[in-house]
Amino acid sequence: MCGGIGSRFWPYSRTDCPKQFIDFLGTGRSLLQMSYDRILPIVPKENVIILTNAIYADKVREQLPDLTDAQILLEPARRNTAPCIAWAAYHIAAFDPEASIIVTPSDHLITREAEFERCVRAGFEFVEANDALLTLGIKPVRPETGYGYIQVDEAVSGDVHKVKTFTEKPDLELAKTFVACGEFVWNSGIFLWRARTIIAALHDNAPEVAMVFDEGADAFGTAAETAFIEQRFASCMSISIDYAVMEKARNVYVEAVSFGWNDLGTWSALYDMSPKNKDGNVTQNCQVLAYNATGNIFAVRGDKLVVVDGLTDYIVADAGDVLLICPQAHEQRIKQMVNDARLSYGDKYL
Amino acid sequence: MCGGIGSRFWPYSRTDCPKQFIDFLGTGRSLLQMSYDRILPIVPKENVIILTNAIYADKVREQLPDLTDAQILLEPARRNTAPCIAWAAYHIAAFDPEASIIVTPSDHLITREAEFERCVRAGFEFVEANDALLTLGIKPVRPETGYGYIQVDEAVSGDVHKVKTFTEKPDLELAKTFVACGEFVWNSGIFLWRARTIIAALHDNAPEVAMVFDEGADAFGTAAETAFIEQRFASCMSISIDYAVMEKARNVYVEAVSFGWNDLGTWSALYDMSPKNKDGNVTQNCQVLAYNATGNIFAVRGDKLVVVDGLTDYIVADAGDVLLICPQAHEQRIKQMVNDARLSYGDKYL
Repeated sequence: MCGGIGSRFWPYSRTDCPKQFIDFLGTGRSLLQMSYDRILPIVPKENVIILTNAIYADKVREQLPDLTDAQILLEPARRNTAPCIAWAAYHIAAFDPEASIIVTPSDHLITREAEFERCVRAGFEFVEANDALLTLGIKPVRPETGYGYIQVDEAVSGDVHKVKTFTEKPDLELAKTFVACGEFVWNSGIFLWRARTIIAALHDNAPEVAMVFDEGADAFGTAAETAFIEQRFASCMSISIDYAVMEKARNVYVEAVSFGWNDLGTWSALYDMSPKNKDGNVTQNCQVLAYNATGNIFAVRGDKLVVVDGLTDYIVADAGDVLLICPQAHEQRIKQMVNDARLSYGDKYL
Repeated sequence: MCGGIGSRFWPYSRTDCPKQFIDFLGTGRSLLQMSYDRILPIVPKENVIILTNAIYADKVREQLPDLTDAQILLEPARRNTAPCIAWAAYHIAAFDPEASIIVTPSDHLITREAEFERCVRAGFEFVEANDALLTLGIKPVRPETGYGYIQVDEAVSGDVHKVKTFTEKPDLELAKTFVACGEFVWNSGIFLWRARTIIAALHDNAPEVAMVFDEGADAFGTAAETAFIEQRFASCMSISIDYAVMEKARNVYVEAVSFGWNDLGTWSALYDMSPKNKDGNVTQNCQVLAYNATGNIFAVRGDKLVVVDGLTDYIVADAGDVLLICPQAHEQRIKQMVNDARLSYGDKYL
């Protein structure tokens, strides 16, 4: 899944080049490319399918030149994860309804790739042996308030558990309790299932979504698929797969894993995951001369020298035509700032 | 005089386009162009001579297309004001030793141009009638610690006084005393004299400078002048006209004037002189969305939106490949920052 617009990282992440296409960790590979590299030992490259917004078709082709156009499914509208995942499932089922699928965001960080591979292989074994919807649940390493949590029930096989409850982002006290009691894992948004299992679950739990794709049953896997999607995809309701299916279905399981995961959902998360220089600052793609300046994150597109005096725990993000200077503690306000920029200047700076 | 590099306004002012070439007040005219416009009612345009560094020849031609190349004297090296003024005086004297001259920086702000014209005309009358070196002294309007002061003696004609003393930048207490006692004016760096008067004063007070130019006596005003300057100018000592002549000569006078002068020597001075928006910020050439941000100056080259949260009394200066974020209270550190940038990156960001 590669269709997000990364607005929480605005203006470093922009509509024309959102987060997943950026070399966010200075490794020389974008988050999308790192996600692709990570999955290749498990999934043959001809079986990798990218779902993205039509406007990012060229970006995907450029960053993943090994893929054919048939492997890039272009959503004509943004409709959250349920319609995206439904399309992928119907598309794959047209070739093989028994196919097992891993669905993964393309903009997360995973540091322990071998452990990731081991966990995913174990997950595939489980969903191939059982009529199961499996989500990967990350064993929490801090009382994070920015993630959803899943309460695990008894283990059914290895690290796989029945799910007891899904829980929204908790406050700090509750998050501490969750972590201490050992029954909770973070909802990673990475899923494994067979094509026919998720399609059946969509029928049971989100019939309004399944109905749209059922209409195109004859089109999937044929030359008519694109035209069908063009015509009907936008009529899907916009809803996440968690709300549409995972929180309602009876056959939901969670595999408790630990492979150095971070969703890089916020500037602070990026700060925490990134190496600091001697001043305690994180620099993305820029040179910084810092005086009395520590705890900052400097993210700059293009070759730039940043000279800063007297700044602590700020985000300084420069994207050529937009400069953001904002305390990390106020990063949740960035969404409002993006809206204000839209109100004042239209799409120019988005 | 148009050869400065404006390093106190780095990086908004850069070696390739220093302060005098920038439209610093958003009027559509650079400080140089404003200085030219201001002098035209007094000096016929064919008598305007620009002294600048050779690297700025194209900038001057571009900004003042009415001038011929013969009116642009290109210094092959930076040698402060005394050699610059000496060259101009010898150059002009070759055409007319009786010529009266006004020497003015090109990067100051003067708000009351009619009063400026009246004062300059009165000054010319004085130096044409007397063997006098005249400097314009600004009646102080605040206890400024960033300027040099001149103590005036008795009036000799209208607002023209003999000079009692030149005084370096005072501390605040002394500056308050200076302003209160009414005997002190600010040293503006604007001078009036006849060509032969300043040349005589150079002989008397700075013979090491005069000697260099005397060697070229036959060259000035001829095709040989450029070659002479190329060969000999750099051998002049680097010294200001104040040190070389004004603080030593016997025939120095000051005209006490009041025409809304500011040397725009610092970011704070620019902040003080500029209109504030509703947030109390000053913006130079950019759009700003400010949240909890006041008292700042935002100076940006190129079309840019600045979004800022939680910043008070800072300088934010963006020049494409350099971004400076610095408290206004630390602006005297910018010189050190420029040096640090040079040490780390050579001339790349200067």
